[in-house]
Amino acid sequence: MAGGGGTRLWPISRKERPKQLLPLFGEETLFQGTVRRLENLFPPERILVVTVEEQAREMKEQAPAIPEANYLIEPAPRGTASVVGLAAAVLQTRDPNAAMAILPSDHFIRNVDLFHYLLKAAFDVADDGNLVTLGITPTAPSTAYGYIQQGETLDGQYNYPVYRVKRFKEKPDEQTAQQLLRTGDHSWNSGMFVWRADAILTEIARQMPALGEALKNISSVWGTPKQDETINALWFNLKNETVDYGIMENAERVAVLPAGGLGWSDVGMWSSLFEVLLPDMNGNIATNSSLHLAHETHNTLVYGGNGERLIVTIGVDDMVIVDGGDVLMVCKTDQSQKVKDIVEHLKKHKQEKFL
Amino acid sequence: MAGGGGTRLWPISRKERPKQLLPLFGEETLFQGTVRRLENLFPPERILVVTVEEQAREMKEQAPAIPEANYLIEPAPRGTASVVGLAAAVLQTRDPNAAMAILPSDHFIRNVDLFHYLLKAAFDVADDGNLVTLGITPTAPSTAYGYIQQGETLDGQYNYPVYRVKRFKEKPDEQTAQQLLRTGDHSWNSGMFVWRADAILTEIARQMPALGEALKNISSVWGTPKQDETINALWFNLKNETVDYGIMENAERVAVLPAGGLGWSDVGMWSSLFEVLLPDMNGNIATNSSLHLAHETHNTLVYGGNGERLIVTIGVDDMVIVDGGDVLMVCKTDQSQKVKDIVEHLKKHKQEKFL
Repeated sequence: MAGGGGTRLWPISRKERPKQLLPLFGEETLFQGTVRRLENLFPPERILVVTVEEQAREMKEQAPAIPEANYLIEPAPRGTASVVGLAAAVLQTRDPNAAMAILPSDHFIRNVDLFHYLLKAAFDVADDGNLVTLGITPTAPSTAYGYIQQGETLDGQYNYPVYRVKRFKEKPDEQTAQQLLRTGDHSWNSGMFVWRADAILTEIARQMPALGEALKNISSVWGTPKQDETINALWFNLKNETVDYGIMENAERVAVLPAGGLGWSDVGMWSSLFEVLLPDMNGNIATNSSLHLAHETHNTLVYGGNGERLIVTIGVDDMVIVDGGDVLMVCKTDQSQKVKDIVEHLKKHKQEKFL
Repeated sequence: MAGGGGTRLWPISRKERPKQLLPLFGEETLFQGTVRRLENLFPPERILVVTVEEQAREMKEQAPAIPEANYLIEPAPRGTASVVGLAAAVLQTRDPNAAMAILPSDHFIRNVDLFHYLLKAAFDVADDGNLVTLGITPTAPSTAYGYIQQGETLDGQYNYPVYRVKRFKEKPDEQTAQQLLRTGDHSWNSGMFVWRADAILTEIARQMPALGEALKNISSVWGTPKQDETINALWFNLKNETVDYGIMENAERVAVLPAGGLGWSDVGMWSSLFEVLLPDMNGNIATNSSLHLAHETHNTLVYGGNGERLIVTIGVDDMVIVDGGDVLMVCKTDQSQKVKDIVEHLKKHKQEKFL
């Protein structure tokens, strides 16, 4: 899933260059990292990329090993339910018995070995007809994620503990997040799923029949000259819906595999970078540390700079400083979700050049 | 007095461009502001500028109305005692009975009318042979200034209350500063003085005989072809001394005229700018406010930017942000005196290009 245009890492992530296309942590972009993480697990021919036209060209340059025909172009974003459905339908035209993992292209995972191990375990569970969600064992009372409550253990000879899903919960308020952390039976909803293509398409047909019908029509002409015409004709009428609310919440046979120790982050806002990049003894992170002079500074991220500019911090605690070309942002770390308010403000005031 | 090379407003104030030469608050430089403040009080022919060679050319461009011969060039900085002495000696060659005001070129004064009134009052006191210091009535327990304790009221028909000086005090620690503020009889030492040239030269001859001797030799050849040769030969041997410690502390007939409401600032560090520039309802100041987007931001100064760059602050309190070309500085306001530590660090590590 690579078509998002998130603004929560503004001003680095921009309308024209969303975060998955950016080398946020070094040489490699998040998209390239997602592809590289699948090495030795899937050959590039088995990686499908669902994205939008505006981003596809750049992605093909970033990941040339993936065959051109594996880039599935959405005529317009219609939410993750449609993305998942399109990928499943196309996959089924290649192999009616295929199973698939749904992976967002803009996440970070430190422990790749464990990730492979968990994915394999999840495929075992999916092969038995379950819709598997990869949960993340919470390490803090986050209000930024949806939660999954696990129920009883799923029977089966699996290589990792896996549970029936009792309930999906929307992003909680702070107090609820505190409670959920303490229960021990709630995971964060990572947006990573594993299932058989036929299983998810059956659920789509049952819960979102209009999408199911469109997918049938599209897959019937997939690979023929009518492919583009058909998807263009049908796509704009689709409801904008997420896979979580549109399908998973009321699906049957949903399982959760709660992962701890993955070193996972959805890189969902600036404060996430403290999970991804490794801070020094004072808790500071500088993406160009030779040009950051920190004096009585703690738990502060200095991101960017033009590679020649000296960035000095004095008496700064718990801040994110983003020195990005035409925009400089200084933000208290625990308020970094408010970046989206700034983006809204700029939209409202038609300051297009900063979007 | 215009020869200083202060670093406390680094990174805007630089070795090659000290703060008096910079348009810190708009079109006009601090030096130009100091000259303009004397309009209608002294004609330009009566303004002497004591500075160093490296700065003189720029000053002559900034204040072309001041005659070339009024720029007194120190071969090397030797402290304010030498500056004051040189100006007094040169002035005496023009008029043996002259009185003079000593004014630093890098201060800010909001209330120019009151400043004129106080200067005139001070000249009245000086004409009677007193060495007058302009004190500033403290508005906070500052540790950044020396203090002057006033004694009994000075007899005389003066247009403003004026006192004998009881004691000069060095920059206090915080606790002492609190006490001094409460006494009501202590003023900040502003570094502005008014006296007759003969009175200060007599004190110099008494307390700093080597300087007195040098000044005699210099003034005897002033305006002749031997002027530069003589000052160059004598100046380097002078002791580096301030007028406060070298002369005023042990001088006779010292008076203080304690000024309140001048809107004075020595612009001595970044936090001083909150006294000079006028904050908005949230206490924020932006030198280019149309390009500062403040979200839950209070008491924060955003200085600089290149005029095209958007500067966003989110959840920022009590900070100084200086966006200056090759250096970006983010500093807690109450730690802005530590800028000098950064400058020391850069010197030590030979990062000349940032100095």
